Amino acid sequence: MRPKLGIIAGGGDLPLKAAEACQRQGRPYFVLALDGFADPALLTSGHPLAVVRMGAAGKGFGILHQQGVQEVVMIGPVRRPSLADLRPDWKATKFFARVGLRALGDDGLLRSVIRELESEGFTVVGVEQVLGEEILASAGVMGCHAPDQQALVDVARGVEVALGLGVLDVGQGCVVQQGLVLAVEAIEGTDAMLARCAGLRRDGPGGVLVKVRKPQQEARADLPTIGVNTITAAHAAGLRGIAVSAGGALLVNRTQTIARADALGLFVLGVTGETAP
Amino acid sequence: MRPKLGIIAGGGDLPLKAAEACQRQGRPYFVLALDGFADPALLTSGHPLAVVRMGAAGKGFGILHQQGVQEVVMIGPVRRPSLADLRPDWKATKFFARVGLRALGDDGLLRSVIRELESEGFTVVGVEQVLGEEILASAGVMGCHAPDQQALVDVARGVEVALGLGVLDVGQGCVVQQGLVLAVEAIEGTDAMLARCAGLRRDGPGGVLVKVRKPQQEARADLPTIGVNTITAAHAAGLRGIAVSAGGALLVNRTQTIARADALGLFVLGVTGETAP
Repeated sequence: MRPKLGIIAGGGDLPLKAAEACQRQGRPYFVLALDGFADPALLTSGHPLAVVRMGAAGKGFGILHQQGVQEVVMIGPVRRPSLADLRPDWKATKFFARVGLRALGDDGLLRSVIRELESEGFTVVGVEQVLGEEILASAGVMGCHAPDQQALVDVARGVEVALGLGVLDVGQGCVVQQGLVLAVEAIEGTDAMLARCAGLRRDGPGGVLVKVRKPQQEARADLPTIGVNTITAAHAAGLRGIAVSAGGALLVNRTQTIARADALGLFVLGVTGETAP
Repeated sequence: MRPKLGIIAGGGDLPLKAAEACQRQGRPYFVLALDGFADPALLTSGHPLAVVRMGAAGKGFGILHQQGVQEVVMIGPVRRPSLADLRPDWKATKFFARVGLRALGDDGLLRSVIRELESEGFTVVGVEQVLGEEILASAGVMGCHAPDQQALVDVARGVEVALGLGVLDVGQGCVVQQGLVLAVEAIEGTDAMLARCAGLRRDGPGGVLVKVRKPQQEARADLPTIGVNTITAAHAAGLRGIAVSAGGALLVNRTQTIARADALGLFVLGVTGETAP
């Protein structure tokens, strides 16, 4: 019997899929759903769970211990709230006093959370250890459309920019068209960035969305993620394709996502060997 | 008599002010207004001008020569169009073939344009040589409000991020609140970035807008600019202040801009000694 898994659930579809995977495999599990981030569909799914505020670290850790959880996986995007929203409990206050809230980007924060979980005795595992390696983007062209030369040039520029942003711990994504950086992602998220690109696009061949893992990224937290909605939004923004880190980005609903890209004429490309500028 | 000045006019209020300054000083001048960028108020102002497409470099240079222009100043933001929009004439085509359109960000492009103007025999001067040093932001607090400790921490983070973006030749601005990078500016411009910040802000003390000169920036082209509208938009986005490069950012309508900031409770800070991360 594999050890009981604690699923710390941020946003999106993946936490529910992780719970379903455990259920299928007969593996014991418990969901710690982060209030304001976890998907409503998860909260009403009948899986064993508790909803906690992000600031209630003490309570959350206590629940995981009480449930006999030994391994923990963090799934789904979270964004660092303001201190006012956070209302940290005593354990969270000590944690933030130690790591220094103000200096942290999202990745720095998640990295610290993982260290904290480990110091509490939990083993922290990556999403792919729960959902299987097929959740990770593979290298090369994943659908039936391939990027042309201009698109590859745009992908290269996008990787350069996204990695530069990643080094700054700001975001993971950007949109490039004909060498022009149309948009850069900060806290608004990929969907909002894509939504504004429709109004920023130039005539001629459409641009590309690039989402890469931050060079220093903790692989067990918040990998860049794409899914069916990303494809649809990229298409609506006039883009011609998407490039992500092979082995370092999550592909939610792989089959449906690639099928949608194929149907809409977008390429999906896994890039390797990205290095910080 | 100072040599005849060619004013290559991008967007905003400053090109018209430059023409007015020449008129006041009795200095000969001629405006080359870039189609799609130059302000309608300039086009109908009665100043001697010709409107040219950005792609019509050959025609534009010919007009400047024909007008007896010796010095040139480039004023007001332009954005690199797509190749399709550009429809380059023969001189512009040779220029782009030489510099490689696809690899260029805005700054790289402007730098190349300046080299090209110089190779045509023009002397290219900075905006402050036409509008006076008072157009440049000064160091320190420029109005009656000063940033508090949290705002200074946010400014420092913003400078780090904006310089990092600048190194990538992507943009010059970002918004930081309580250490969180709410937004990063690419091609949409500062006003559009500020507009989306209202929906991204967190509770608690408001954020700051930071606009800095790119570390490698050609000082004679496209310095970061703020004005009355920037103050109004920053206030509407819930921000508490603005920081810009002292001596490396333009302050349009200095008196009115600072007065608006004072009235709305925003600080305006000139930062010095920024270094790339």
